[in-house]
Amino acid sequence: MYTVYGMADSGNCYKVKLALAQLARPYRWVEVDSTRGGTRTPEFLAMNPNGKVPTLQLEDGSFLPESNAILWYLAEGTVLVPDTRLLRARALQWMFFEQYSHEPNVAVARYILRYLPENSPRRGELPRLQERGHQALAVMEKQLAAADFFAGQYSVADIALYAYTHCAADGGLDLGRYPALRAWLERVRAQPRHVALG
Amino acid sequence: MYTVYGMADSGNCYKVKLALAQLARPYRWVEVDSTRGGTRTPEFLAMNPNGKVPTLQLEDGSFLPESNAILWYLAEGTVLVPDTRLLRARALQWMFFEQYSHEPNVAVARYILRYLPENSPRRGELPRLQERGHQALAVMEKQLAAADFFAGQYSVADIALYAYTHCAADGGLDLGRYPALRAWLERVRAQPRHVALG
Repeated sequence: MYTVYGMADSGNCYKVKLALAQLARPYRWVEVDSTRGGTRTPEFLAMNPNGKVPTLQLEDGSFLPESNAILWYLAEGTVLVPDTRLLRARALQWMFFEQYSHEPNVAVARYILRYLPENSPRRGELPRLQERGHQALAVMEKQLAAADFFAGQYSVADIALYAYTHCAADGGLDLGRYPALRAWLERVRAQPRHVALG
Repeated sequence: MYTVYGMADSGNCYKVKLALAQLARPYRWVEVDSTRGGTRTPEFLAMNPNGKVPTLQLEDGSFLPESNAILWYLAEGTVLVPDTRLLRARALQWMFFEQYSHEPNVAVARYILRYLPENSPRRGELPRLQERGHQALAVMEKQLAAADFFAGQYSVADIALYAYTHCAADGGLDLGRYPALRAWLERVRAQPRHVALG
C-alpha cells in the first residue's frame, strides 16, 4: 500500500489524494505540516532531500517526490494518462505549465493570504503574484474555450491544474472573468469518485 | 520536419537542440529573441499563448511548448526515456524539480547577470536566487554522489538539468563545492552526439 506524506490543505498534495481516489487505490496518509517546519526535519529530508510535500512512499519502500511525477506514476496505463504520444506530451505540457507559470503565482498568493499574518511584509508580493496568476488563468481560459479538457480527455493534467485553480479565490484571484474555466471546474467536479480538497 | 522556435543562448531551448542532435532528427531553427519582445508579438502568441520559447512546431503544423514536454515528446520510445514505469517517474521527478526548484533560481540569476544592465534594480534579487540555486545544486549533488545519472541511465532528465547547470557560473554560482555534480557534467558531455549551448 502507498503512503502519502502530505499536508491536507496543500493543492499539490490534494492532486495525489484526488488521483488515488479516482483510481480507487488504497493508501495511508501521514500529515506533515510544511508551514511549521515538518518538511525540514532530518527524518523528512532523508525521505526527500528537496524538503517538499507531497512525497509518496512506494511499495518497495522508496520515496517519490514532485506532485506531477507522482500523478504520472500512479496513472500511467490508466484512463487518466492519454494513450497517444501527442496527447501524453500535451498532458505534460500543461503539467509543466502548472508548475512553472501557475502554481508559483496562484498557490503562493493563496499561501500568503491564508498562512501569513496580516502584517507580513510578503503581502507586498501579492500584486505581482496576482497579475501573473491572472496571466496563467487567461492562458487556461483560451484553451478551455476551445476544448473540454487539457489533453483530449479528463486526465492528470486536469487534476494538476484543478488543484490550485478551484481555490484561486483564496489568493485573491476572482474567476468571474473566465467563463470557460468555470465550466471546466464543474466538469472536473462531475468526474466519478471526485473528492474535495482538505 | 520539426521547426524549433527558440533562442540560441537559452538553456531551455538548448535542451531541445541537444535532444534533436542526440536523436539524429533533422529540424529547422527559427531564432526568436525573447529578451527583445520576440515572444510577445501577436504572431508568436498565436503559436504559444503563454509567450515562451522553446515552442516546437510538429509535422502536423500544431505547436508544442514547454521544454520538458518537448523533450518527452521527442524521446518517448527511444533510449532517452527509461523503459520502466518507476524510472520514467524518476525522470519526470527530476524534470519537475528542474522547472520548479532549479531553473527559476539558476537560470534567472544568469539572465540578470547576462542580459540586464549593471544598474538594474533586479540585481537585488541575486542573493536570494543564488541561495536557492545552491540549495537545488546541493540536492543534485546528493543524488549524483550515489548514482551516475538521474533516472538509472542517461535520459531526458539529464538533458533537462544539464542545460542550466553547466553554465551556472554565468549566474554567479560556483560549482567548486559539488564534485559529484562536476563529474556528472563530464559524463553528460561524453555522450554520443553531444552539442554545446549556443
